[in-house]
Amino acid sequence: MNTFGRNFVVSLFGESHGEAIGVVLDGVPAGLPLGVEDFGHDIRRRKSGGKGTTPRIEADEPVILSGVYEGHTTGAPLAVLFKNTNTRSGDYEILQQVPRPGHADFVADVKFDSFNDPRGGGHFSGRLTLPIVAAGVVAKKIIASVLDNDGEEPKKAGARASDPAPCTIKASIVELGGIRRGNHSETRWRDALDAAAAEGDSLGAVVECVISEVPVGLGEPFFNSLESCISHAIFAIPGVRGIEFGDGFRAAAMKGSEHNDPFGPDGRPVKNGAGGINGGISNGEDIVFRVAFKPTSSIAKEQQTLNFVTDKMTALSVPGRHDVCFALRAPVIVEAMAALVLADQLV
Amino acid sequence: MNTFGRNFVVSLFGESHGEAIGVVLDGVPAGLPLGVEDFGHDIRRRKSGGKGTTPRIEADEPVILSGVYEGHTTGAPLAVLFKNTNTRSGDYEILQQVPRPGHADFVADVKFDSFNDPRGGGHFSGRLTLPIVAAGVVAKKIIASVLDNDGEEPKKAGARASDPAPCTIKASIVELGGIRRGNHSETRWRDALDAAAAEGDSLGAVVECVISEVPVGLGEPFFNSLESCISHAIFAIPGVRGIEFGDGFRAAAMKGSEHNDPFGPDGRPVKNGAGGINGGISNGEDIVFRVAFKPTSSIAKEQQTLNFVTDKMTALSVPGRHDVCFALRAPVIVEAMAALVLADQLV
Amino acid sequence: MNTFGRNFVVSLFGESHGEAIGVVLDGVPAGLPLGVEDFGHDIRRRKSGGKGTTPRIEADEPVILSGVYEGHTTGAPLAVLFKNTNTRSGDYEILQQVPRPGHADFVADVKFDSFNDPRGGGHFSGRLTLPIVAAGVVAKKIIASVLDNDGEEPKKAGARASDPAPCTIKASIVELGGIRRGNHSETRWRDALDAAAAEGDSLGAVVECVISEVPVGLGEPFFNSLESCISHAIFAIPGVRGIEFGDGFRAAAMKGSEHNDPFGPDGRPVKNGAGGINGGISNGEDIVFRVAFKPTSSIAKEQQTLNFVTDKMTALSVPGRHDVCFALRAPVIVEAMAALVLADQLV
Amino acid sequence: MNTFGRNFVVSLFGESHGEAIGVVLDGVPAGLPLGVEDFGHDIRRRKSGGKGTTPRIEADEPVILSGVYEGHTTGAPLAVLFKNTNTRSGDYEILQQVPRPGHADFVADVKFDSFNDPRGGGHFSGRLTLPIVAAGVVAKKIIASVLDNDGEEPKKAGARASDPAPCTIKASIVELGGIRRGNHSETRWRDALDAAAAEGDSLGAVVECVISEVPVGLGEPFFNSLESCISHAIFAIPGVRGIEFGDGFRAAAMKGSEHNDPFGPDGRPVKNGAGGINGGISNGEDIVFRVAFKPTSSIAKEQQTLNFVTDKMTALSVPGRHDVCFALRAPVIVEAMAALVLADQLV
Repeated sequence: MNTFGRNFVVSLFGESHGEAIGVVLDGVPAGLPLGVEDFGHDIRRRKSGGKGTTPRIEADEPVILSGVYEGHTTGAPLAVLFKNTNTRSGDYEILQQVPRPGHADFVADVKFDSFNDPRGGGHFSGRLTLPIVAAGVVAKKIIASVLDNDGEEPKKAGARASDPAPCTIKASIVELGGIRRGNHSETRWRDALDAAAAEGDSLGAVVECVISEVPVGLGEPFFNSLESCISHAIFAIPGVRGIEFGDGFRAAAMKGSEHNDPFGPDGRPVKNGAGGINGGISNGEDIVFRVAFKPTSSIAKEQQTLNFVTDKMTALSVPGRHDVCFALRAPVIVEAMAALVLADQLV
Repeated sequence: MNTFGRNFVVSLFGESHGEAIGVVLDGVPAGLPLGVEDFGHDIRRRKSGGKGTTPRIEADEPVILSGVYEGHTTGAPLAVLFKNTNTRSGDYEILQQVPRPGHADFVADVKFDSFNDPRGGGHFSGRLTLPIVAAGVVAKKIIASVLDNDGEEPKKAGARASDPAPCTIKASIVELGGIRRGNHSETRWRDALDAAAAEGDSLGAVVECVISEVPVGLGEPFFNSLESCISHAIFAIPGVRGIEFGDGFRAAAMKGSEHNDPFGPDGRPVKNGAGGINGGISNGEDIVFRVAFKPTSSIAKEQQTLNFVTDKMTALSVPGRHDVCFALRAPVIVEAMAALVLADQLV
Repeated sequence: MNTFGRNFVVSLFGESHGEAIGVVLDGVPAGLPLGVEDFGHDIRRRKSGGKGTTPRIEADEPVILSGVYEGHTTGAPLAVLFKNTNTRSGDYEILQQVPRPGHADFVADVKFDSFNDPRGGGHFSGRLTLPIVAAGVVAKKIIASVLDNDGEEPKKAGARASDPAPCTIKASIVELGGIRRGNHSETRWRDALDAAAAEGDSLGAVVECVISEVPVGLGEPFFNSLESCISHAIFAIPGVRGIEFGDGFRAAAMKGSEHNDPFGPDGRPVKNGAGGINGGISNGEDIVFRVAFKPTSSIAKEQQTLNFVTDKMTALSVPGRHDVCFALRAPVIVEAMAALVLADQLV
Repeated sequence: MNTFGRNFVVSLFGESHGEAIGVVLDGVPAGLPLGVEDFGHDIRRRKSGGKGTTPRIEADEPVILSGVYEGHTTGAPLAVLFKNTNTRSGDYEILQQVPRPGHADFVADVKFDSFNDPRGGGHFSGRLTLPIVAAGVVAKKIIASVLDNDGEEPKKAGARASDPAPCTIKASIVELGGIRRGNHSETRWRDALDAAAAEGDSLGAVVECVISEVPVGLGEPFFNSLESCISHAIFAIPGVRGIEFGDGFRAAAMKGSEHNDPFGPDGRPVKNGAGGINGGISNGEDIVFRVAFKPTSSIAKEQQTLNFVTDKMTALSVPGRHDVCFALRAPVIVEAMAALVLADQLV
């Protein structure tokens, strides 16, 4: 099912080279101010064009089909559409013969009996993250509206009631090509991207997301723990290989006395090893998680792989212009996914 | 919601010191042979008693309330109950005054307006993993039954059709207290556990799970990717801090030419950096994921933390007999969660 | 799936002659006062014993397994159990040979490959309405609590804001054996029951349910219209053959000028032909619906039917003590189902 | 939520006078032949133009946005769009002042804080049944495909295995303006429509739906009985006031010996009082249900109703060209809803 959420429900549709891609949002409260211009900022952040991203530019103009009237959401399902314009026909049968390593060509062919749309990855395309970003824009508005209208629901811990700042979701690259963010990392990242590009190769990255000013009490014990819901959404992003909260994998090598978060005199944890979540429930501290993205699978560098029709090994150099590191476009997608989860809990 | 699954639905209930804990399983196919004796093996694997686990022994006898008749499942909801016997009353109001670091005491108190059952962590207790293990036993039976009855649904890749071995799910500790599994690791782990116990401290661990002989085609693109569903279930286990698939976080530091899985002459990937999943869909290779568990939060070692009533810092030494490393009991729980996901996709 | 609801989720389990039957309620708000004694009134209303019902008396003692602590709901899943005591073994294989007309024997046998529990109808038994009544008791408490705490959410129409009476759900028999409620109907009903009993036959009935003081705004346009949700729940009661709202089937023979509900000077409809719902949404008027119950299927009177094993027609007189009109016990079940729907919308 | 189904999920969006209306279908199997021309027949059946329907003609051209490639479904979500062309701006603020009797104007205004799109009823418009009919076309294809590919799943009763006819869903008017179908009913219906039109009034109708060649075993005991699911979908159609299965409301006035369905020598019920469903499960007989539709609410005939702004009673004659009996267009919508339910059970 290509649907997410229980009370704020996101339904995704479209293929990379089909007529259009889009998303239907159900459960959007009535009365939120919303226009196409609201999508611009986040759509631009996802767009290609920077160092390490493909120079191919798509229009990415959202069309609101329903759910908005006179500049406000109506409470009815909100459908947002993006026309596919920059597509070109090509010989895609080759993908069924020589499935691209790291792509869904092989599994799509088996799962859908070769009826899947192979053009540009079809429904598996990273282009589908565009309507997800659009959904995230609406989700962020919902979050701000709910927390602004009613800071008491769900409850904020007493110690934090004096801080009226709204909940914010902020994701950024903290590691690129194995190089952590720090002194001169911008320069070193640029060099690594240039080097990989020169080899026709690609790089991965780690994105960190911090959600601030979260009310206490989001999430459920066990099956719908907040980590469960966030990780569910995050692994829906193509190319994610791992997720960790707070101290993450390092926690496994820590002692209890090191990892535990005792409460300090102000009623707040003195550290945040749990990443803002205890027992599956938000504790009011920053929710902090990191997401590992694989390197771009489409590389010009030759790979030896099987041609399933000729049954012979062949040298494959994936054609086309690709991101050296598609994860550079991921932070806004990670934010969108986090926002979908929070909005679903708050509406 | 304390419910998981769409077609095989698991509903969990109970509190640590309440009358009973249990699980209702809906969507169990009729005709599976099942009796209380089938639960014994996995329940024993979860039990305490080994090095690094608490010596307190509970009975853990499953009672099948419904859904089984004359030794076979009936197709009606299957309810399994475990009575709570080894409970003792205590002064639990202290937990609302001095919430234990790393536990859900604080968030439960806020979320449930102090109406939560505080005894032994209430519904947040790790004891609830017992009915989860029971659910996993049924899920494993479902998986074996579906794949045995009909190896073609969902499809297995041609190259693997000759192998009739059933799908297996196997989890084990691969890192304990920061020490990776390898030569002499058993000895080194024992020493680390002894040292931590002597200090009244605790250790974390990493559990690796391998699912073999998975049919191709499980999972969906985007919102219900197989990683999404597995991570959702895994983060429902108390104390999980991270999950990674295949090359995991290391993939973020690899180049595309290193991480990609080209196909070899036999039609199978020459490596398995993707951990058995592409585009959210199982590709027929082993599904491999690792789970980071935090160290046990309840430690005898003194922690300085706040008493929320007196508003003064206090030295807390969590009383009772606790696992030095509760993750030692986790592999069978990880298996159970993986089984819930697969069974839900297969029924 | 034996589950109902989205935010207040009811999971039903058990078989007529199994160890126990019960229900798990997820999404119950914390802090509702609740004890076993709260179930007594509605359980007694469902009980047999009156004119036209079987003299067999069951204990029907609820056991709260979880979700209640010190007399209040905890916010964790609430499990209620009823032990089956008054069962006796019998020769139930005959049901697979001679499926009882009007019962689920035949379909259960086919659907569940003869693995269904045939004793007393197994999971299909009307006895399962007992935990449904228990769920209804909790649902009614939720409704009262939500509307009491926060009369503004969802909104009540202005004209009704002055009336602080809580929402009530009241169901009763309005037709029995074809005789409508009216003058002397009690006497005539008694005579009809006696006559049917004397013939070893049975009677049906129509139950009307009125929900008063409903807030405006419950329900959704189209797929989750309030009628959709209520009818979904009502048809889950065994033996229901029809449901109608407001003017119901008579509306089909009315003109628009007769059926429409114009608004009067006080802002309220001058009549209530729509039964309190417009466009799938509650309009603040009484929600009124009627439910048609078939006559009891188990009758002593001989029926000619097939023995599927001998392939010969046989005369069947269903043994045992049965309700002449099981619908006499139905009003409280109808109320419970209506309460489940409202509670699910209000939590 | 404007979503229906568990495995075949239908998400509806759009407003009467917005840019477009449409539907997203998730869970469509790959490989079904499908093109825009397949929608023509059912769309025409829904169209206005006949006696008793409005002469306004809309284009109703479906656009397939996704999920179809080279004439076959891909297995990815299938989005179908209908542009709104024949809309005209008007003074819709009057609807908030003088809500039309029988319409959703009042409840929409309250529920959505006056942010709802009031033009032509907005999201509540009967025009939304157009994408529902489109969804029904796909659902019918799914049903035929599943039952054709695999007549054994779910099982057909033995007695019917020799009949290879596919499952068919057929709905038609059986009562119009209180006149039952029979001799000369066509003529009498025409006269009744003319008479109502002359008065500026409207008529209701009863639609009967028969589903033939249904496999045994669809539906679940209790909460997802087949009647529950069908009625849920049917009450999503605007203007439905009641539904009954088999003997329906008449069953309440029958004796058990009259209503029961004993099995005859051929293993089939000698009658079909249950309407093809026992214990919530299809029994292989025709599923028969009747749906009561109210008369069209929009009538030219003057109604006295309140102006909520002036607080004075006013004479309302609803302007525009309306169906005298919108139920004449309903049979294909009833079929579509029934098809959604069956497809959801069969995929």
